[in-house]
Formats: sequence, structure tokens, C-alpha cells
Amino acid sequence: MSEISPTMGLDFEKGGGLIPAVAQDDETGEILMLAYMNRESFEKTLATGEVHYYSRSRRKLWHKGGGHSGRVQKVRALYTDCDGDAIVVRIKQVGGVSCHTGRRTCFHYQAGPDGVFRLAPDE
Amino acid sequence: MSEISPTMGLDFEKGGGLIPAVAQDDETGEILMLAYMNRESFEKTLATGEVHYYSRSRRKLWHKGGGHSGRVQKVRALYTDCDGDAIVVRIKQVGGVSCHTGRRTCFHYQAGPDGVFRLAPDE
Repeated sequence: MSEISPTMGLDFEKGGGLIPAVAQDDETGEILMLAYMNRESFEKTLATGEVHYYSRSRRKLWHKGGGHSGRVQKVRALYTDCDGDAIVVRIKQVGGVSCHTGRRTCFHYQAGPDGVFRLAPDE
Repeated sequence: MSEISPTMGLDFEKGGGLIPAVAQDDETGEILMLAYMNRESFEKTLATGEVHYYSRSRRKLWHKGGGHSGRVQKVRALYTDCDGDAIVVRIKQVGGVSCHTGRRTCFHYQAGPDGVFRLAPDE
């Protein structure tokens, strides 16, 4: 086993200023979405208790659900991994819907044996 | 609600040929690690039923656990999200250890209110 550091810093440099952040439902364990945080997003998330991402398409801070939908993501716990280049945020999803399509989770396409992703059976 | 496509293709272009892939324990729902797949990794994963990533540091195909450890990740189900730029792979982790540090999950650092990541209480 490798030595474990007692603390870990986030490595924003490896991904050009962005770290992938996985939102997981704190009650069910379901993975709801994956987006990106820059340092500002992370600090806003920490300061407000609501998840902020960085929108790569709009190139700006993105307060998830902070607009008209009100479907914000309340932070329950924040984790990083053994080299600080990924984030898991356990959340309570207000309104129960994470995806812009109106689905509970963004991960609603499942691969068949042929490698084609189709709508998952339970969606 | 936006229109839902019946199928979804993976978008390797957005991330310069790589897509972040989240490995989740199929039984417990625990998130074990996040790494990257290129098209070859994805196809190998599908063909073999064992997870293959692309190692960004070594710049080559990476058959997780395929070396001396034998701690391979058996695919139970593969998902992508609403825009095909992220992957979730539900797995059975052979040997029960995903992290190179010998821990069950790579995500063993938890953020305190001060933003410092320390070893999670249950680790």
C-alpha cells in the first residue's frame, strides 16, 4: 500500500483549470450528473452549500438550478480522490430532477452488447 | 422537458479524444474511481467485459488490474449521459480494492468546512 497523505489539495492544473465533479444522490447513491468545477466554482460551492459548476459551453460560473427552475443541489458531503483530480459531491437534489431533459439522472442511456446506447429500461 | 433521443452516441471529440468514466460499485452504489476512456478503451471494455481506461500519464491503454494485482473491474452495466460526454460503469471490483493506495475507493478525502480535504472518517 502506498503512503497516504493526511490531507489532499485539488489539482486544477492537470485539467487546464477544470476538475470533473460527479453529483451523487446522498440518499440513494444514484449518480445524477457529471460536470466541471474551476476553483471559483469549488469555493462558491463550499461557501454557499449549493453546487456551482463551470459551464464549458457558456464559459462561466454555473449555479445549478439557481435560475428559474429552483432545482438546486444542496451539498451533503464533498470528496476528492487519491490524486486530487476528481470530485464527488453527495447532494440532495431539490425537485428530484437533475437533468435538463426532466429526468432524475443524466445517465439514462445504457449500452447494449452491440455498444449502442439506448434509453435505460427504467427510464 | 426536452426531447429525448432513443439512442445516444459517445462524444469523444469534446474532451480531445477522452471521456471521463466513473466506476461505481454495482452492489453498494459507492463511487470507486474516475479515470478516462478513449474509443479503444471503450471498445476493449465492451468486448472483454473488464474495464479498460486510457492512462493519461502513461499515454496508453490501461487494463485496470490486468497486471500483477488481478484486481480487475467486471462490467455489470454501462451508461452515458444526456449529451454522451461522460460514462458511468457499474462494476464488480475483484479483490474489493480499486485504489492504488490499497483503499476500497479512491475518493477517501473529505472536505471540511474550511475547504481542506482530510482522510474521510470511515477510512
